[in-house]
Amino acid sequence: MLINGKQYRSIWLDREDPSLVQTFDQRLLPFEVKIVDLRTADDAYEAIKSMLVRGAPLIGATGAFGLYIAALECPEIDFIETLKSRADYLKSARPTAVNLAFAIDKLLDKLSSTDTKTSAIPKLKEAALQLLEDEVEMSKAIGLHGLELIKEISKRKNGEPVNILTHCNAGWIACIDYGTATAPMYMAKEAEIPIHVWVDETRPRNQGARLTAWELEQNDIPHTLVVDNAGGHLMQHGMVDIVFVGSDRTTRSGDVANKIGTYLKALAAHDNNVPFYVALPSSTIDWTISDGVKEIPIEERSQDEVLVMEGTNKDQFTSVEITNGKSKASNFGFDVTPAKYVSGLITERGISEASEEGLLKHFPEQKSNK
Amino acid sequence: MLINGKQYRSIWLDREDPSLVQTFDQRLLPFEVKIVDLRTADDAYEAIKSMLVRGAPLIGATGAFGLYIAALECPEIDFIETLKSRADYLKSARPTAVNLAFAIDKLLDKLSSTDTKTSAIPKLKEAALQLLEDEVEMSKAIGLHGLELIKEISKRKNGEPVNILTHCNAGWIACIDYGTATAPMYMAKEAEIPIHVWVDETRPRNQGARLTAWELEQNDIPHTLVVDNAGGHLMQHGMVDIVFVGSDRTTRSGDVANKIGTYLKALAAHDNNVPFYVALPSSTIDWTISDGVKEIPIEERSQDEVLVMEGTNKDQFTSVEITNGKSKASNFGFDVTPAKYVSGLITERGISEASEEGLLKHFPEQKSNK
Repeated sequence: MLINGKQYRSIWLDREDPSLVQTFDQRLLPFEVKIVDLRTADDAYEAIKSMLVRGAPLIGATGAFGLYIAALECPEIDFIETLKSRADYLKSARPTAVNLAFAIDKLLDKLSSTDTKTSAIPKLKEAALQLLEDEVEMSKAIGLHGLELIKEISKRKNGEPVNILTHCNAGWIACIDYGTATAPMYMAKEAEIPIHVWVDETRPRNQGARLTAWELEQNDIPHTLVVDNAGGHLMQHGMVDIVFVGSDRTTRSGDVANKIGTYLKALAAHDNNVPFYVALPSSTIDWTISDGVKEIPIEERSQDEVLVMEGTNKDQFTSVEITNGKSKASNFGFDVTPAKYVSGLITERGISEASEEGLLKHFPEQKSNK
Repeated sequence: MLINGKQYRSIWLDREDPSLVQTFDQRLLPFEVKIVDLRTADDAYEAIKSMLVRGAPLIGATGAFGLYIAALECPEIDFIETLKSRADYLKSARPTAVNLAFAIDKLLDKLSSTDTKTSAIPKLKEAALQLLEDEVEMSKAIGLHGLELIKEISKRKNGEPVNILTHCNAGWIACIDYGTATAPMYMAKEAEIPIHVWVDETRPRNQGARLTAWELEQNDIPHTLVVDNAGGHLMQHGMVDIVFVGSDRTTRSGDVANKIGTYLKALAAHDNNVPFYVALPSSTIDWTISDGVKEIPIEERSQDEVLVMEGTNKDQFTSVEITNGKSKASNFGFDVTPAKYVSGLITERGISEASEEGLLKHFPEQKSNK
């Protein structure tokens, strides 16, 4: 998508120098757009660990490119063994990120024990690039399925802008392109269907204010930033036509773990008959669990994310403490929205009812995977 | 209540100098505790207008004291007429604050047309002080009614701390003492019933992080600050036993207008069988309206409150911009929680069911006031 009028993906291999991977330092967005060079496995490891890159698909892609540039560094002798230990190292950058291990293993699977450095490198490069294309195709597919929902509402509203609410950032910058929850918005833009997006700021880390608002602004999509408290009021007054959010983990029964606060918006949507859709790559469905509230462990993060707020003052990146320093805070990263409050799950294969039955219609191969 | 170990009310008349009113500059709290002198009607007007004082009961008291110190300034000739025009001036500081006009009129009602400056001043002083005492008694009564709910839960939990969630600041600093939503907490403290309070930070103005957390910390009540997004997750996991919030305006049918985001917490409480109580002085009940969502106009405030966040950096009071400056924001100040999601209304007369029938049991004199 666009940044300062130029088309980008969130990560890429340099055209001239195929040993150079580039991405954005997301910790500085939207205050500074800084392109970062990843030239070594260490660079990739640090980028993942320090959250310079974020979002499951982008973390996976960074791991894949990281393995490819690790291969360039490996000695020819004991190449496969050395590469495998570099793979383990890269995976350890964020051990709970399922996509990271998945992407790295996908690359390793392309190699055989007889591969040498010379034969392996083009295979790894091709596989990493293919993984990128697959992610983009997946986002596009999600976007096109979601677009149908927008089109329907647009028709009902006689072309008046469709009001969409979103929480956090399941945007193109967290993926490779288009995003998940944002993909239908970008598709609507391409299809010239007028929309307007309410962007939840998404405390404590403000991914809505910092990333989603910025993405939409850069791509010229009308939007308005609101505090996380506002969604209920907006829905009570008919100002939201549909909600799109992403998902970090979805159970086989359709319960959705996503950024803290998602559940509150789902309740308000349900109370006001506003359709509530979750956009997700099927790779984030955990087919082994059914009860999201009971079975999905919720990460507790540092209280500093609540107590300190980042931003700019006179264009300088800085932060403020929001209490007098004597109260402690708690910081649960996610919550679980029970399937009964989810109107549908938008995956690359289509829109499923948020239930085991609904999901298995699109993923029949998972029937036995319990 | 306590500030730095010393008992205060939110506004008072100096013991030695009966022409000096003092209060706190709430715009600086909790970063600085600054006592401000109000010596003239202009001082009182500015304090109200600039939101140096906030909270309906405190605004009313500031208006009452403002009229009393206005009387001290008035010439003896044409005293009553001059005082009345000062009264109108004071009321205009926040024309929509019902309590302000109410308090000022209450003082004026004590005077007759034959009063002189000499005879009026002691009457006004006494009436202003009485208004203060009445507010304190009202908070105490609300606190004692709410305390019964806490006691019941405490018994059921065998004395384990009762977990209370609150939104915004309906605290002692917004009233004269004890507060409304906080009054049951302070009463529990006095009764030595262990409690723990989850404090919603309450974006955009952060009254929870800045005022409620500070109040509780100063009065040694265990509490934890959370983002406004967290309450649903806490309730899903049994971490909240009861919710207490305040109200800016309540309909005769029990719909509750309160700080934006209150409705979302009420939905989560309802979904998880957590009792949701609203503490309010009966003066904030609007007996003339029944449908809160349709009939209560919701104030839209400056987008800067969303886009800019105040706090401290290296102990200096400052602020940060949280976007890249190109997205606009919207800022609705309140939302309405329909009566069906309210477990009960705690007024100075007791706990009512949130319905016309329930309210009229405690306020039979309002039967005809429709």
